Amino acid sequence: MHQPVNIAITGAAGQIAYSLIFRIVSGELLGKEQPIHLRLLEIPAAQAALEGVVMELDDCAYPLLAQLYYGDDMRRAFDQVDYVFLIGATPRKAGMERSELLSINAQVFHSQGKILNQYAHPQAKIIVVGNPANTNAYITRRAAPDLPDSCFSSLMRLDHNRALSIIANKISSVQNKAKAECQTNQLKQMVVWGNHSSSQYADISYLTCKDIPIGASFDLDWLDQSFVPAVQQRGAQIIQQRGHSSAASAANAILSQMYDWKHGTKANDWVSMGVISDGSYDIEAGLFYSFPVTIEKGQYHIVPDLPLSTRSHNHMQASLRELQKERDAVLKLKWA
Amino acid sequence: MHQPVNIAITGAAGQIAYSLIFRIVSGELLGKEQPIHLRLLEIPAAQAALEGVVMELDDCAYPLLAQLYYGDDMRRAFDQVDYVFLIGATPRKAGMERSELLSINAQVFHSQGKILNQYAHPQAKIIVVGNPANTNAYITRRAAPDLPDSCFSSLMRLDHNRALSIIANKISSVQNKAKAECQTNQLKQMVVWGNHSSSQYADISYLTCKDIPIGASFDLDWLDQSFVPAVQQRGAQIIQQRGHSSAASAANAILSQMYDWKHGTKANDWVSMGVISDGSYDIEAGLFYSFPVTIEKGQYHIVPDLPLSTRSHNHMQASLRELQKERDAVLKLKWA
Repeated sequence: MHQPVNIAITGAAGQIAYSLIFRIVSGELLGKEQPIHLRLLEIPAAQAALEGVVMELDDCAYPLLAQLYYGDDMRRAFDQVDYVFLIGATPRKAGMERSELLSINAQVFHSQGKILNQYAHPQAKIIVVGNPANTNAYITRRAAPDLPDSCFSSLMRLDHNRALSIIANKISSVQNKAKAECQTNQLKQMVVWGNHSSSQYADISYLTCKDIPIGASFDLDWLDQSFVPAVQQRGAQIIQQRGHSSAASAANAILSQMYDWKHGTKANDWVSMGVISDGSYDIEAGLFYSFPVTIEKGQYHIVPDLPLSTRSHNHMQASLRELQKERDAVLKLKWA
Repeated sequence: MHQPVNIAITGAAGQIAYSLIFRIVSGELLGKEQPIHLRLLEIPAAQAALEGVVMELDDCAYPLLAQLYYGDDMRRAFDQVDYVFLIGATPRKAGMERSELLSINAQVFHSQGKILNQYAHPQAKIIVVGNPANTNAYITRRAAPDLPDSCFSSLMRLDHNRALSIIANKISSVQNKAKAECQTNQLKQMVVWGNHSSSQYADISYLTCKDIPIGASFDLDWLDQSFVPAVQQRGAQIIQQRGHSSAASAANAILSQMYDWKHGTKANDWVSMGVISDGSYDIEAGLFYSFPVTIEKGQYHIVPDLPLSTRSHNHMQASLRELQKERDAVLKLKWA
């Protein structure tokens, strides 16, 4: 048995956390030999529901769950924390302006950043999930100046996976004609660039199937009019079908992003991850933007020198402009 | 890679299935090398919601998910099926008599049994979860005379795990006095006897902690007035806390019951499982009753010759009488 690791999850009584917690504690993230000190954080109003989740965790009798804290004390939750999932965020309510939403969540993530700065392990891996995820990550990182850039990411893996599944379905639907049978897990080098919002840009320029480039085989009209919007609208479509927003696939994406961040990316492949820009690809440095990254020994690296078409460049700059606006809006807030 | 196995889940758009499906397909049940042909079954009214679940499954890009059927065709779902999770059942609605509920579900499980009889793999492992689980298992088994008894079980693992967690909490709360520190996973030989209902009997007579018997250390009054009712009412308590019934811990229990059925029980331990009685412990043969079982090479065996106190015997007979009444009620129905 290894030394226990500390894992903190905010929004722990919510639906995404409900699909995530049980998978983490069963050993899917760090293996069956890794004891876990789990910290579940919620706002005071959700403490009763959180207690219900904790009762269910008790009822699973997980051998890896060596210690559990639950409550609303960020200091206890983030003390020497190794893995952080910032899922909780105030959802947009009827009649709420976007600026108001931005402002409420900015305060939450600013506070969390300050506490992380003081208490977290200096090599902590922090994934921001609560929306607007990229800008919340920017705020969190800004409030934690003593932690390195490499501690922070925002979730883009769900968009990345959705893009893969839509392409796999497209290939399957023309399979009889093209004989180009291809499973989702044989697709590599997908990129979703930009903001986790409808300005994001799913890019198949470098896509391979069974390591053979297939990006050029897609019709540009289909890409612009069907594919890119389909990835953007996938979440809304699932809500319409299920009557609830996607929780299990979001949790799965969160788990996958952290898993790869810890264990590394596969050969000849990368993943899309929201990370702090270093100025690559004409993206303003310091903003959280989704790039293709490879990961080795727990460190991510933005894939360098991919050729960009004018079409790609335009899409990417549009998403950048949205992020700049979000950043400008939060920097105007009093606390900043 | 192995030959694919066929796994069928009914009630696939429901909350328990939502917590179960993604864990099975990620490889938690059968390992990371076992491709899965998954069949998700739902009633016609839930097909739209099921489609949403399938979209989320797509978005996980699971490498082990080699084939997927979803719909309402039992023949396709159960064809050569190896692992079956019968989760779907009509819940009791306001104003519905218990006999009416029993009758509606009896028809569903009778039909499923008939199709399983024709189509399932002769060594299929079938877990009945939908309530009343024991009597639904009885009906399913009765409608499938060509399958052996050993194919069928009903879920009791959630009750078993709940009993363990309540005892572990009890030990922790007196820990400072007794210095008897004991984690849930160090407890062995818990039994929950009988029906999955409020007549069930959680029995700590044989309980060990770190392989030392501790059953005699509990006060009889505490057992009768606190422990046994606490296990029975745990589900209601979680609903009160969360505002939703326990889905994640139920799914975890289902996964654990099937995992142990496939991979075997641990040394010096057993699990509680609803299986067809062979007349052991004065329980009428042919009824589905929860017994302690050990499992080896995929076959369960009721633990023989445990000494029973008069108190235990009385509790166990009371739960038996309830099962006999449920059986008598369903046998009066027209279709039987």
